[in-house]
Amino acid sequence: MKEFPILRDITEGKKVRNLTDAEQTALAAEIRDKILETVSKTGGHLASNLGVVELSIALHSVFDVPTDKIIWDVSHQCYPHKLLTGRADKFNTLRKFGGISGFTRRDESYADPFGAGHASTSVSAALGIAKARDLTGGDYRVVAVIGDGSVTGGLALEGLNNAAGLNTDITVVLNDNKMSISENVGAFALHLAKLRMAPFYKKTSEKAKSVLGKHKNVSRAAEGVAHGVVRLFGSDSGAIFEEMGFTYIGPIDGHNIPVMKKVFEAVRREKGAVLVHVVTTKGKGYEFAENNATGFHGISGFNVLDGNIERKPSNLTFTGEFSDALINLAEKNERIVAVTAAMPDGTGLTKFKERFPERFFDVGIAEEHAVTFAAGMASRGLRPVVAVYSTFLQRAYDQIIHDVCLQNLPVVFAVDRAGLVGEDGPTHHGVFDLAFLRSIPNMTLAAPRDTMKLRDLLTFAFSHKGPVALRYPRGGSPVPHENGDAEPVALGRGELLLEGTDTVIVAVGPTVYSALDAAEMLRNEGISAAVVDPVFIKPLDKDLMYDILTRKVPVLVVEDGTSSGGVAGALAEFAAENDIGKFHLETAGLPDKFIEHGQLNLLKDKYGLTAGKIAERVYRILKG
Amino acid sequence: MKEFPILRDITEGKKVRNLTDAEQTALAAEIRDKILETVSKTGGHLASNLGVVELSIALHSVFDVPTDKIIWDVSHQCYPHKLLTGRADKFNTLRKFGGISGFTRRDESYADPFGAGHASTSVSAALGIAKARDLTGGDYRVVAVIGDGSVTGGLALEGLNNAAGLNTDITVVLNDNKMSISENVGAFALHLAKLRMAPFYKKTSEKAKSVLGKHKNVSRAAEGVAHGVVRLFGSDSGAIFEEMGFTYIGPIDGHNIPVMKKVFEAVRREKGAVLVHVVTTKGKGYEFAENNATGFHGISGFNVLDGNIERKPSNLTFTGEFSDALINLAEKNERIVAVTAAMPDGTGLTKFKERFPERFFDVGIAEEHAVTFAAGMASRGLRPVVAVYSTFLQRAYDQIIHDVCLQNLPVVFAVDRAGLVGEDGPTHHGVFDLAFLRSIPNMTLAAPRDTMKLRDLLTFAFSHKGPVALRYPRGGSPVPHENGDAEPVALGRGELLLEGTDTVIVAVGPTVYSALDAAEMLRNEGISAAVVDPVFIKPLDKDLMYDILTRKVPVLVVEDGTSSGGVAGALAEFAAENDIGKFHLETAGLPDKFIEHGQLNLLKDKYGLTAGKIAERVYRILKG
Repeated sequence: MKEFPILRDITEGKKVRNLTDAEQTALAAEIRDKILETVSKTGGHLASNLGVVELSIALHSVFDVPTDKIIWDVSHQCYPHKLLTGRADKFNTLRKFGGISGFTRRDESYADPFGAGHASTSVSAALGIAKARDLTGGDYRVVAVIGDGSVTGGLALEGLNNAAGLNTDITVVLNDNKMSISENVGAFALHLAKLRMAPFYKKTSEKAKSVLGKHKNVSRAAEGVAHGVVRLFGSDSGAIFEEMGFTYIGPIDGHNIPVMKKVFEAVRREKGAVLVHVVTTKGKGYEFAENNATGFHGISGFNVLDGNIERKPSNLTFTGEFSDALINLAEKNERIVAVTAAMPDGTGLTKFKERFPERFFDVGIAEEHAVTFAAGMASRGLRPVVAVYSTFLQRAYDQIIHDVCLQNLPVVFAVDRAGLVGEDGPTHHGVFDLAFLRSIPNMTLAAPRDTMKLRDLLTFAFSHKGPVALRYPRGGSPVPHENGDAEPVALGRGELLLEGTDTVIVAVGPTVYSALDAAEMLRNEGISAAVVDPVFIKPLDKDLMYDILTRKVPVLVVEDGTSSGGVAGALAEFAAENDIGKFHLETAGLPDKFIEHGQLNLLKDKYGLTAGKIAERVYRILKG
Repeated sequence: MKEFPILRDITEGKKVRNLTDAEQTALAAEIRDKILETVSKTGGHLASNLGVVELSIALHSVFDVPTDKIIWDVSHQCYPHKLLTGRADKFNTLRKFGGISGFTRRDESYADPFGAGHASTSVSAALGIAKARDLTGGDYRVVAVIGDGSVTGGLALEGLNNAAGLNTDITVVLNDNKMSISENVGAFALHLAKLRMAPFYKKTSEKAKSVLGKHKNVSRAAEGVAHGVVRLFGSDSGAIFEEMGFTYIGPIDGHNIPVMKKVFEAVRREKGAVLVHVVTTKGKGYEFAENNATGFHGISGFNVLDGNIERKPSNLTFTGEFSDALINLAEKNERIVAVTAAMPDGTGLTKFKERFPERFFDVGIAEEHAVTFAAGMASRGLRPVVAVYSTFLQRAYDQIIHDVCLQNLPVVFAVDRAGLVGEDGPTHHGVFDLAFLRSIPNMTLAAPRDTMKLRDLLTFAFSHKGPVALRYPRGGSPVPHENGDAEPVALGRGELLLEGTDTVIVAVGPTVYSALDAAEMLRNEGISAAVVDPVFIKPLDKDLMYDILTRKVPVLVVEDGTSSGGVAGALAEFAAENDIGKFHLETAGLPDKFIEHGQLNLLKDKYGLTAGKIAERVYRILKG
């Protein structure tokens, strides 16, 4: 067990400022050790956190938390901030059930003024906080820290566009690590690259000069220019930000604490909207992560000494089968193209990108654009698939309705990380997709129970003349994958997998296997349970649903999504619309609350999605 | 009846190019007359269409529709385009049931490659079409026409950001009419204003020069600079767009057809991403609209001669009562602030803006930012209300989940234009809100049946410690408004308005009054129907719902929203979760399809929401 002599005494952010420069440097090393020690065991976000250690120290040295408000965009890079704000002693509980979150949370600490998890929210939130301060006579600073990846999100761009008009004091720290999760794309990325490559000293905007010039300490920081530490550019280079009404300062070396402190001291006293462009290195200080920032973005455990990332042995993952099956289909159908919003690795598109570079599109963190862009391609006869995490697809809800489904365009949605995701918690659980996708006309929605069914459904999806969403979870298939050709799938055809006389369990996606196991347990109790896989949530298999709803036995719906508007509701609506008269429906979906973070199996057990809990539930229904 | 000698012969877009300049000028006058003649009777969007008459003629003179693809953003300005593409003879059916749409629609004409209705989609759609062209070996041009209001939407900004990286040929025409629906806001607006005010000839970017210079005809257009017709600016002024990788050309007089044709001819042969900045006047050529573009944005009928806009006598509208009640509440509670996304008039916030200018925020067309900005304010103790149309709130679905509800922040959503809206059709019907809002944890969702209940619920909403959405329709209260103080409302308390023994009708919002009328009709048939107003869709009144679901009579749910995931589903889920056992539920909500445009009462009748249709439905359920 390492010791952390400096970090141990940092019980709140402001204690950082009492340290000497040398002590702050040592503190940075301790924080890196602490993060490596912890994340190698708990898993979590590594590279992004190692990149902002010095930035976090510099911010807490200048800004007075909790009086001042620091808002971390996405907030997967909040570990140093958490270590500096009284959470070092609980840091070993990171991402564990009941432990501290991997993201900022208002209910976790006074030091987290606004929680996050999704990208691009920080500027808007900071502006809201700043205007609240102005209207209520407060006197504090508001700082948004946003990565170069997040800044391409429409929400961030809307916020930046609105900042000048709001006429308030706000600091945006642009943490430019030269990549979002994978490679960065788009005009902002090119612009930032140009800023980074700009000659040493080109031109200082008059406004930026005056910000720094009038503060004595900062004239020294500005002198850093002569040492290549600080470079200031004016309207030629910080043009986009200057045109948006920001005073642009940068780029600054994001691993040089003294320089950052001087700049922040100056900015702290400044009026209006200021953007400080800080350049950092993802994975900084840990060679394996510096060289493979994507691999060390969000990870399970790893060996600190050799950088070997744990790969849990498991069945083929749904993501893996999506990747393989898509390439097979794309070999035969050249109209298939693939779109991701900055997640080629997570969604399984990296192999597709290598195989079909011309047919692969990473549009950056921009889910709305990804969907409407795909709709445009579909309108001209291409067969796009948008591969996206369930929780991030929420960003494109209106585009799915307005651009895809209203026009009945054949876009395939590969909705990964559907259901509970575990340690990433409430911002990342994909528990709303069943509800929000099934309410959209023209949408076809299916949930494969295993990787073979995913292969079958993906094949079906590209032959269907309209939008199709396939939702499947993180992790391995509940049964071993079997290679083979896709079996034909009929639209809206469900499967009665097990016959039974006392009850019917309708289970969605991989919960089908839990339901089958539950039926086995129930048999030992003398209860005969049928198990149905609807396969299609929309359209439902009318004959099959009519059959089970008129059997005069309780029907239990098991779904790894919210019960509010989910599949149980769909069955009830079906009954109501089809004059079934009286029926008996029970739900075993997720409750109407945000589900906390924690190990996946713990959460499944707590929320009744394991075989044992399903069996218990049926027993209770039938035996009182 | 006016004659339209030139327009009569324009049966397709390309016929425009055979006309002389003088004839095109005369055509513009005919189009204006035709639009005025029609819209004064049918209602619709006026000012925006009068503003793009010359632009539409110039585009069709140069681009070869349908081979070339013109995508109109929002597309409320598509009337000249429709008149030029074979729809002049049907133009009198504009926005009528069974007639042509007020927006572009793929299923209406070969000339509409991508439909719209919501803002900011055109750049992404155009990029998708352009990449499809590239991948399939097509040879045509793709043009997106987007207003200066729409360009502030996150989706448009994401698209613009991604354009350069996609390395494709695309033309974006920025139609700068100096306002979105109301006044424009934000950095892009300031930037455009600066461009417009820039000195006559400042500096021509080398790239823009070369685009125009190498085409003979355009050197003449460039000469227009000397006459103040065309002004070209380079990196200093078109900076944002140039930085985004566009070749920026403009601003150009959007009412000068010859100049626009020359510029478009040059641009048509150009590679890469080109942005042409065209300046137009909303309402051009119709004095009353030029002077009151906001009033003539989207209107009912009006008198062409004196510009008097028809105001149908009706009860106080929900919007009007929201406006009044909000000001009353804000007088007493200085923490109340209001946010709109470019719709202060439509949502009823104009009076609030005048009364409390410091507490009013128009963030431009940026619904996502509006919601997260409000969340930021709420996190510091303010009580923001986001006033927004139901259909546009879809844009902020993820922000409602992730920024407001997950943090349980007390943001009030005043969801106007909920339910069917009539002539604006499927892109504008607010029929998904009940489904998508009720599935979000921590959300409280209520539907006032009349303006008095809206007053009561708004008062409640600002006292509630969490997010509250109130959804109410376009138009007048179903009963006359009665002034008075707000009555106290208990969270989750519904009302049994009429007792009855044969059936229970549960009706949402103003459909309550249709249900009461239906009950009256049914009484004459010897049927005794109870009528329940749940008031709160979430949380439901558990006692009341338990009561009616266990009565052993059919329960009919009437809702002006989609039946897929709507209130009927909520009742069914309640029954399923509360061990009610068998129950009999019937739905009278909207079917699972996109609802067409047409006069509101026609649509209500067609979809079973009138008193007569509700009574018929109950009769059928009970008497077979």
